Amino acid sequence: MIQRCIDTVRVLAADAVQKANSGHPGTPMGIAPMGHVLWALAMRYDPKDPGWPGRDRFILSAGHACMLQYAYLYLTGYDVTMEDLKSFRQLHSRAAGHPEYGLLPGIEVTTGPLGQGFANGVGMAIAQQSLAARYNREGFPLFDYHIYAICSDGDMMEGISHEAASIAGALQLGNLIYLYDDNHISIEGDTNITFRDDTGIRFQAYGWHVQEIADGNDVEAIAGAVRNAKEETRRPSLIKVRTHIAYGSPHKMDTAEAHGSPLGEEEVKLVKERFGFDPNRYFVVPDDVRDYYRKVGEDGTKKADVWRKLYSDYKRLYGIEAAEYERLAAGNLGGEWVKKLPVFPAGDKKIATRKASGSVLNAIAEDLPLLMGGAADLAPSTETKLDKYTSFSATDRGGRNFHFGVREHAMGAILNGMVLTKGIIPYGATFLIFSDYMRPPIRLAAIMKIRPIIVYTHDSIGLGEDGTTHQPVEQLAALRAIPRITVIRPADANETAYAWRSALEHTGGPVLLVLTRQGLPVIDQSKYASAEGAMKGAYILSEAQGEPKVILIGTGSEVHLLLEAQERLLQGGIPVRVVSMPSWELFDAQDKAYQDQVLPRGLRRRLAVEAGSPQGWLKYVTEDGAVLGIDTFGESAPGDAVMKEYGFTVEKVAAMAQALLNR
Amino acid sequence: MIQRCIDTVRVLAADAVQKANSGHPGTPMGIAPMGHVLWALAMRYDPKDPGWPGRDRFILSAGHACMLQYAYLYLTGYDVTMEDLKSFRQLHSRAAGHPEYGLLPGIEVTTGPLGQGFANGVGMAIAQQSLAARYNREGFPLFDYHIYAICSDGDMMEGISHEAASIAGALQLGNLIYLYDDNHISIEGDTNITFRDDTGIRFQAYGWHVQEIADGNDVEAIAGAVRNAKEETRRPSLIKVRTHIAYGSPHKMDTAEAHGSPLGEEEVKLVKERFGFDPNRYFVVPDDVRDYYRKVGEDGTKKADVWRKLYSDYKRLYGIEAAEYERLAAGNLGGEWVKKLPVFPAGDKKIATRKASGSVLNAIAEDLPLLMGGAADLAPSTETKLDKYTSFSATDRGGRNFHFGVREHAMGAILNGMVLTKGIIPYGATFLIFSDYMRPPIRLAAIMKIRPIIVYTHDSIGLGEDGTTHQPVEQLAALRAIPRITVIRPADANETAYAWRSALEHTGGPVLLVLTRQGLPVIDQSKYASAEGAMKGAYILSEAQGEPKVILIGTGSEVHLLLEAQERLLQGGIPVRVVSMPSWELFDAQDKAYQDQVLPRGLRRRLAVEAGSPQGWLKYVTEDGAVLGIDTFGESAPGDAVMKEYGFTVEKVAAMAQALLNR
Repeated sequence: MIQRCIDTVRVLAADAVQKANSGHPGTPMGIAPMGHVLWALAMRYDPKDPGWPGRDRFILSAGHACMLQYAYLYLTGYDVTMEDLKSFRQLHSRAAGHPEYGLLPGIEVTTGPLGQGFANGVGMAIAQQSLAARYNREGFPLFDYHIYAICSDGDMMEGISHEAASIAGALQLGNLIYLYDDNHISIEGDTNITFRDDTGIRFQAYGWHVQEIADGNDVEAIAGAVRNAKEETRRPSLIKVRTHIAYGSPHKMDTAEAHGSPLGEEEVKLVKERFGFDPNRYFVVPDDVRDYYRKVGEDGTKKADVWRKLYSDYKRLYGIEAAEYERLAAGNLGGEWVKKLPVFPAGDKKIATRKASGSVLNAIAEDLPLLMGGAADLAPSTETKLDKYTSFSATDRGGRNFHFGVREHAMGAILNGMVLTKGIIPYGATFLIFSDYMRPPIRLAAIMKIRPIIVYTHDSIGLGEDGTTHQPVEQLAALRAIPRITVIRPADANETAYAWRSALEHTGGPVLLVLTRQGLPVIDQSKYASAEGAMKGAYILSEAQGEPKVILIGTGSEVHLLLEAQERLLQGGIPVRVVSMPSWELFDAQDKAYQDQVLPRGLRRRLAVEAGSPQGWLKYVTEDGAVLGIDTFGESAPGDAVMKEYGFTVEKVAAMAQALLNR
Repeated sequence: MIQRCIDTVRVLAADAVQKANSGHPGTPMGIAPMGHVLWALAMRYDPKDPGWPGRDRFILSAGHACMLQYAYLYLTGYDVTMEDLKSFRQLHSRAAGHPEYGLLPGIEVTTGPLGQGFANGVGMAIAQQSLAARYNREGFPLFDYHIYAICSDGDMMEGISHEAASIAGALQLGNLIYLYDDNHISIEGDTNITFRDDTGIRFQAYGWHVQEIADGNDVEAIAGAVRNAKEETRRPSLIKVRTHIAYGSPHKMDTAEAHGSPLGEEEVKLVKERFGFDPNRYFVVPDDVRDYYRKVGEDGTKKADVWRKLYSDYKRLYGIEAAEYERLAAGNLGGEWVKKLPVFPAGDKKIATRKASGSVLNAIAEDLPLLMGGAADLAPSTETKLDKYTSFSATDRGGRNFHFGVREHAMGAILNGMVLTKGIIPYGATFLIFSDYMRPPIRLAAIMKIRPIIVYTHDSIGLGEDGTTHQPVEQLAALRAIPRITVIRPADANETAYAWRSALEHTGGPVLLVLTRQGLPVIDQSKYASAEGAMKGAYILSEAQGEPKVILIGTGSEVHLLLEAQERLLQGGIPVRVVSMPSWELFDAQDKAYQDQVLPRGLRRRLAVEAGSPQGWLKYVTEDGAVLGIDTFGESAPGDAVMKEYGFTVEKVAAMAQALLNR
């Protein structure tokens, strides 16, 4: 019976890929026994309540094998239809070419770019431990679920798997159970042409518990290994399973061709014959197989019912905790934290926006108990430590500070895994230049419409001596180019507080806070506009005395230059308006009337000033305007000297504004 | 004496960082003994001829420790002065905050972003083996040098070190000798807060030869380990050396503070006292130390002389080989390959630009013997295999095809290492979406003004079924934002041939070829302009019949739509010009007269069409124009269906052009 179940999944996958005439049949066929172990024997889930908080999480890090997942979601009774499977990879289908979060129920995370799912799971495991530490009580193990993943050779080759495995080992995340589909085949041929790692030994070096299964069709052995892995609570588990890609295909098994192309009509027929199916029927699920898996799904619902009973008892005994959890899981942050946002007095003391950010974080941390994060080994520089809280570690699961290590890429993907666990508000931090190391997870967060918060400090050539390799130039433009992203580069300490508020109130995509290393004047809100305007993306910080002839637009560390230039220009008889524009995206989201008020159509002489690539600024400055930006790389020298060398001075700003009038 | 030498370097580093009031004193102090072993005992180099082809290569992957390298370059007699050291991290200094290729002689590669140097070395090792395979002859081991690197904890944590170490192990690059500065300290504190790998075991799992040195001050032991590593020719070597950051500093040794901040005036005095130096004198090099290291440098020159003699004998015996090597090393590619560039006939057969690229590569490979490359496990998809050549492997060093594995990040950095070896022309390939995995090495290539060629295929939503996670949208904009980069997205097979020509003739920065998965019509050069215009970045592909009222500007797979729209608009009485614009950067480099000819100032109604982010197009279309681009993510469906869904149709193009006229 079990064999029939597994073979049905294989045939379904082959059929769906063949019908789509596109896709990856070989991997689902090879790993169907693993799939059976997970969905029929190991995992806790409720097809009728896919978001049940106590469920095990499943990640298909080998996202190209998605037909496996779709088949099991269908068979076990999720809201997935045979029509979904038949529309695999077609326009507006819910069965996309790689698993997409939000399309079919039961997909916990969007995968496809290799290595991401591997690291997402580490974030989910951290989140589980965090919830357990805060809410579990004696006799009430509300959050004691596992995170399962199926990984491929490609995941193992990608560097992010090293980063994520290393931190998972250091943190002793025993709730991770990863199955490694070791099929020896990659697109260019046998993996040994370039990949000869002893992966088992490698993972032992990270502190993982490693098991090896010689026969990927041995369901008993895989099930036993998963049981062992569940019993192992102090080490993450890797179960390396020797499989055969396109198992059951007489001519394509163990070939690279079976990876990314349909098997072909005739070969699919041979597969069906091999497994005792009618070669001329398509998308067939034998009744007994359907009954078997539906029963499995119903048992899942019963397990969830037990949990729900447990939770209702918990709620009676621990009403405050339950109320807090439910509120936070619903995304309701309460109103206390907003009141705690610091106000920074104007004065002679310069404050780096990274420092202001640190003050903000520490001021609001108490009222946001599931706000947690850390840096990629740059906490002292990024000012992201929560001073009153401990570090999350193998022995302290209640810690809210994370030491991500020099692992920006994994950090990004771990944040995604954390934020996918309802209630958790994760942030991560590094230097802006290292956003280049972590673009894939940022993009995936945008695709998934989830909101990790990323703190990027040392945001321009103004960082100084670390020099060319550390000075961002094109990073702002490159990040803003990502759809659904929100980049905020506040001009001073008070705008930084509002930037955090915008970030925490935002939904639907990642928010990146871009902050200075160097100290900046705190803009006097009694003289100029309230920094609250930052939440609209752009606002009139300082209106012209008289009819404005030019608008000076700036972001971040350049804004205070504009205020000085404004005074200088006024002395020269030229009234100019200064607009602080910390966020393109927030401004673009305002209504047209507000946009026209800040940047009136008739006022076309505009100078944008930003210590970064000018790319994209033209849409705000008009053709009668100009951009003071940077179109080359930086240089190693004290920050003030570099800024001056690249023209970020009051004199240059004033001269360029003047020049606009003389055109 | 040796101790005095080492302590002098420590004191120099402490002095320089203190004077700059910025930098990383602890690491140079901790690893000075390693430095001594390398510069005084192990490495072959000639301070008077830093580019000597037979030299060992040294990479400071821990780039922040650059004062170590600067000190040794000064002491051994490179063209580096005490003034250079005293101007550490100052404006226009050659002694930048991280080592920069091209500033001080003897710096083989720009480092700083962690992990990059580690992987660059693998590229250099491949290049050495490639040169050896082609040019070494019995009795003439011209190229038998080693690649040395000093790596840090940060390098080991970054995922790219996994990718690079894994491929180095698989390729058995025995010419790599890496010293790992295992100082247990990272910026956030003891490395064990997040990093508990058994790095030695991890590297053994990659097939490396691993040695461990318990005492980082034990020069004999380090020297012995390096000797062993040289004898080990089949495995890359890792020498893990337990060091102490800021060794010699009574209060800062073994602290995180010593990593990134000056020790402080008083502490530097204590360091000097500890080592028997006058605490009140700065930048002191005792005469005997200077004599010692100068002698070492002079011995290096003698070793190089022996090599030069060997080479002149070689040249006499192997004149053809020597002439070829010298020509290629000088960057002279000869004229034969240009003649071999294929011309693709127009006709009904569609050709994907990736396919055309494959034809080009194979047509020119024979005449460019040091052109070599491969893909990140996507050779069949990116069409980058050189059919007549073997694969580079542990047993075939003459192979010109590389299997980089699913390791885009390392691939980028390996290409940089290869291209830094004169003569070698490396290319790498993957899908455009995965450019996100490899931005740091692309940026570093641009900083270094070196020219790897990167082939990015599957370049838009037009790739189809693989869906959202695989469809590039913002990648073109994000890449174009990088200074000194050249992005070329050819419109058809013939433009692809010219794109390759542009790439191979380019100097001064990386070139990225952006190619389609899907077939495209081959534009009829007898009806339209010659594809040679592509080399100017943009050209009038099809002039309007009559005074043009609109310019249609397109790149890549969208250009043929413009030609069809042109006909349709003409039928409607609207003559339009079609400009093919495969490369912004190549066009921006043309003279103003040519630019005005293609895009005349007076002709302001322009429509740019590109299946990607519109960011940055405004500068070419004017405010009276428009952009047909994409500002969201893609979708999984057949490519034609997706393109239509997103508006990339002749109808939409014609309608938008019409609308411009009606404004």
